Amino acid sequence: MAQSAVRRRGYREGLGGEMIAEFLGTFVLLLLGVGSVAVAVVGLPGSGRQVVEFGPANWLIIGWGWGLAVVFGVYVAGGVSGAHINPAVTLAFAVRRDFPWRKVLPYWLAQLAGAFVGAALVYACYRWAIDAANAQAGVPRDQSLATYSIFATFPAEYFGNSWWGPLLDQIVGTGILLLLICALIDTRNTAPMSNLGPFLIGLVVVAIGFTFGTNAGYAINPARDFGPRLFTFFEGWGPIALPGTFGWFSGYWWIPIVGPLIGAVAGVLVYDLLITPVLKARRKEAEEAEEGPATQEP
Amino acid sequence: MAQSAVRRRGYREGLGGEMIAEFLGTFVLLLLGVGSVAVAVVGLPGSGRQVVEFGPANWLIIGWGWGLAVVFGVYVAGGVSGAHINPAVTLAFAVRRDFPWRKVLPYWLAQLAGAFVGAALVYACYRWAIDAANAQAGVPRDQSLATYSIFATFPAEYFGNSWWGPLLDQIVGTGILLLLICALIDTRNTAPMSNLGPFLIGLVVVAIGFTFGTNAGYAINPARDFGPRLFTFFEGWGPIALPGTFGWFSGYWWIPIVGPLIGAVAGVLVYDLLITPVLKARRKEAEEAEEGPATQEP
Amino acid sequence: MAQSAVRRRGYREGLGGEMIAEFLGTFVLLLLGVGSVAVAVVGLPGSGRQVVEFGPANWLIIGWGWGLAVVFGVYVAGGVSGAHINPAVTLAFAVRRDFPWRKVLPYWLAQLAGAFVGAALVYACYRWAIDAANAQAGVPRDQSLATYSIFATFPAEYFGNSWWGPLLDQIVGTGILLLLICALIDTRNTAPMSNLGPFLIGLVVVAIGFTFGTNAGYAINPARDFGPRLFTFFEGWGPIALPGTFGWFSGYWWIPIVGPLIGAVAGVLVYDLLITPVLKARRKEAEEAEEGPATQEP
Amino acid sequence: MAQSAVRRRGYREGLGGEMIAEFLGTFVLLLLGVGSVAVAVVGLPGSGRQVVEFGPANWLIIGWGWGLAVVFGVYVAGGVSGAHINPAVTLAFAVRRDFPWRKVLPYWLAQLAGAFVGAALVYACYRWAIDAANAQAGVPRDQSLATYSIFATFPAEYFGNSWWGPLLDQIVGTGILLLLICALIDTRNTAPMSNLGPFLIGLVVVAIGFTFGTNAGYAINPARDFGPRLFTFFEGWGPIALPGTFGWFSGYWWIPIVGPLIGAVAGVLVYDLLITPVLKARRKEAEEAEEGPATQEP
Repeated sequence: MAQSAVRRRGYREGLGGEMIAEFLGTFVLLLLGVGSVAVAVVGLPGSGRQVVEFGPANWLIIGWGWGLAVVFGVYVAGGVSGAHINPAVTLAFAVRRDFPWRKVLPYWLAQLAGAFVGAALVYACYRWAIDAANAQAGVPRDQSLATYSIFATFPAEYFGNSWWGPLLDQIVGTGILLLLICALIDTRNTAPMSNLGPFLIGLVVVAIGFTFGTNAGYAINPARDFGPRLFTFFEGWGPIALPGTFGWFSGYWWIPIVGPLIGAVAGVLVYDLLITPVLKARRKEAEEAEEGPATQEP
Repeated sequence: MAQSAVRRRGYREGLGGEMIAEFLGTFVLLLLGVGSVAVAVVGLPGSGRQVVEFGPANWLIIGWGWGLAVVFGVYVAGGVSGAHINPAVTLAFAVRRDFPWRKVLPYWLAQLAGAFVGAALVYACYRWAIDAANAQAGVPRDQSLATYSIFATFPAEYFGNSWWGPLLDQIVGTGILLLLICALIDTRNTAPMSNLGPFLIGLVVVAIGFTFGTNAGYAINPARDFGPRLFTFFEGWGPIALPGTFGWFSGYWWIPIVGPLIGAVAGVLVYDLLITPVLKARRKEAEEAEEGPATQEP
Repeated sequence: MAQSAVRRRGYREGLGGEMIAEFLGTFVLLLLGVGSVAVAVVGLPGSGRQVVEFGPANWLIIGWGWGLAVVFGVYVAGGVSGAHINPAVTLAFAVRRDFPWRKVLPYWLAQLAGAFVGAALVYACYRWAIDAANAQAGVPRDQSLATYSIFATFPAEYFGNSWWGPLLDQIVGTGILLLLICALIDTRNTAPMSNLGPFLIGLVVVAIGFTFGTNAGYAINPARDFGPRLFTFFEGWGPIALPGTFGWFSGYWWIPIVGPLIGAVAGVLVYDLLITPVLKARRKEAEEAEEGPATQEP
Repeated sequence: MAQSAVRRRGYREGLGGEMIAEFLGTFVLLLLGVGSVAVAVVGLPGSGRQVVEFGPANWLIIGWGWGLAVVFGVYVAGGVSGAHINPAVTLAFAVRRDFPWRKVLPYWLAQLAGAFVGAALVYACYRWAIDAANAQAGVPRDQSLATYSIFATFPAEYFGNSWWGPLLDQIVGTGILLLLICALIDTRNTAPMSNLGPFLIGLVVVAIGFTFGTNAGYAINPARDFGPRLFTFFEGWGPIALPGTFGWFSGYWWIPIVGPLIGAVAGVLVYDLLITPVLKARRKEAEEAEEGPATQEP
């Protein structure tokens, strides 16, 4: 019966609905996350006057903003699609065999589309502020790294033109994200209950922002970076967006894609090598102990 | 029996009690929310010296202040009235058929009254600070946008006299609020349990403050804006409050009413078009699978 | 049997143990709360240079510090004494008939002692920093309102010598505290479960700090203010502490005692007049509906 | 049967697995905690320009950073090893007889190794930023207390060369940590449920950072301090790291080891003397009341 119900399941209840949920979750993620950088860079009076000048209090707004963006992106989509809202998460779960490979590309497309549309809506709301900030700084849009930084990421100047520094940063940042997601959804470990997982997963991103945020803008999510990057390319930021060429760097676009994909797989592997085997063995032991004698006596 | 119990129900246990709860919840919302802007603008030493100058750390106080104001406004009224404490929420729930249309106007009145009284009590506590700040700035009350900003909202100067920018901002801000409320109370989705919904709903407002707060003061609630606007009008801020005319804008008062009402309905529609159908279909499927053969065989 | 068990109960398991728990809870409250002001005023490099200069970021440290202090003061004592850790809460619960009058004075004494010892331990840890800050400012201890402000409260300068402003502030601040505590522990309303009440009650105090903190230092707790006031009086701050006389004010000490006691009772009355009757009536109704016909048919 | 299952248990499912979990949990703690200081000191534009200059907003990043680091260090290891991730916690639990003495040294080793590797990975990600900050300040690495402060702790200048001040600070800080951990895991008290203990325990560390953080950098964990101290010694900071000799102090290294170990035991003793006996007596009473007459009548 359950079989036939599944057979009868339409596109909407299956992959189609999941893609819509991933779209909406990633849309919410970008709307709130990118919005918080907009507040910090061009929204507050006195912000955005200099190129890429974040003070620590602005950074607190950005850190809490992106963290809460994750919280609510996950709550919106969680019950439908599992709320990956991040191609790196989707890949890592597929590698882990928690997620079917055939759904990976559809999820990625939905996430990218959601990120693009989310960034576009933030732009629609903040274009007055962006134009005013650029006018005040006397910088045309295609030379304004500051207003570009609202949407997508770039590496700190101290890296120079080295790609290894920011790539390592993206690998480590996304690695810790997936390691902690694995812990927070593992009911054999101490996973939060009462449906508070999404709240804690969002706090992981607050933590990453406060600890690995300033090196390269903590994309840790290929859709979160490439969606708005595409949008800003079409909207006049030109080569700063694509291929990501500015002052001290040429062609940055691929790092916040490749880094997170590598890091996510690494994070899952660390958890599944160091923590999962013990928890599995203990559960098995506990089950055997329960069944106990009955299974041994013929 | 339940029927007759309802028939016997007095005014106080029914709509009357709900109106009192909405009054008290909105009162708490305004007392804490408006109070936090008072701290940021005239309370802290060194604040309020210039017209409408918020630094990022002041904005953190305001963002957490309004967010926690929502948390506790909802906890106070939740068990009695459902704690809308926002006319836009009430309208959206009526459109969604979760709430009877005949109660919409009474709820609106109670919310507006609560907002007015909450703002008045903040004024009673902060009038010394307000007068000192105005005296220090050498600005009479009816020309002080800074001290007015404690109570109600106005658009950023970069919008000029355009009403479309702030209206869009209010539509988007309230849209995301209702979209996320729908997710957070939907037990078919991943709604938080252990009565922690109000905590998470308050965090939605923290997020909106950090992401859509600076364009136009994130009213996202007609009562939250119009209640204190009325109060400040009577208390000497004059045309800045009503009709909302100051430096770069004429007649702002209707935008934080119309914008949130449109946005709230839009937010509910997005959730009910993109997420609800999948969750409904899956639940139906699951129920059919359970009942299964028994219901098909006569 | 339960009776005789109670009769056999020693002093330690009864009121004595509750007094120890109130002592320890209030000690934790003061240790963390006063400590956070010490960090903001004399701990961080660059703080404390001017008399009573709090910037907004310092205020965030103080606001979160006192809020978390309440969270953990309540978690420590909760299971033993109910964790009032505030004489105003004890009085209000007695007025409400939730707490026996004969225990009010013993609780008050324990709370005051805990506050005194907590403040003393903070002093023991921060006396180097306090002396360095006073030396840097060139102000003797008994004229340093800045270093005194680490321990106990005083009103903002804009109140002048008026006692009505700060008293009203204390009444409103403590009123909202008790109103919200009543809501958060009322299982007929939407009280948080999973033992998360103390977390939310601490967030109430974060909210009050961000909204009613700067007028007069949000004592909202007679023990929290009078304990450290006594300590600083003995430790050399002289008349600033007792009777609370400095620049613009004479004899402030009684306001953070009387204000909170009045406010707490007012807060409980508001909840019990506006919210409790509806919830009671509904529960009764629900019970009658359940028992139903049986009670009507003779 | 359970017995023989335990006998069959391999090294990996027993102490070996626990050591791996402690390693990983402490690694996460350091990765996020040290990372947050890196953001505050050399990550944000404008930070790190002066020797050891933290503003209050930088301190908020550090405080939340270390607090969330504890939250997630505990969630990673909790289900396997109990997530001490702190030698002082391990010692205190052994003293309390909650933990076998024979496991103390293995746990300590795992924690120290995790701390060392965590600090090393932060260094790998931030070495560009560190070198740029030192170059900008014109200070060689082995004279840069500022960049050293990213990794391990040192006392405030106002203590001079006195070891008693910082030692007391470490004792009090770790004492309050253990006192509150005891409360938060005590199910006879009001311990949070739904696996939210790790969240609240992390908030304890947020609170300690905001209240006892600036005196001596709140190590409150011998591994958290000595692991990165060793790493920075090998990596070129020289005597600043070991033996901890700089401007105003000689040989600081032992204080963040001895202080936390003393404080942790003191914190547990306070809880077990003041709170545990009442809760035990009440539970016993309740059990006797339940069993009641039946057990007394033959």
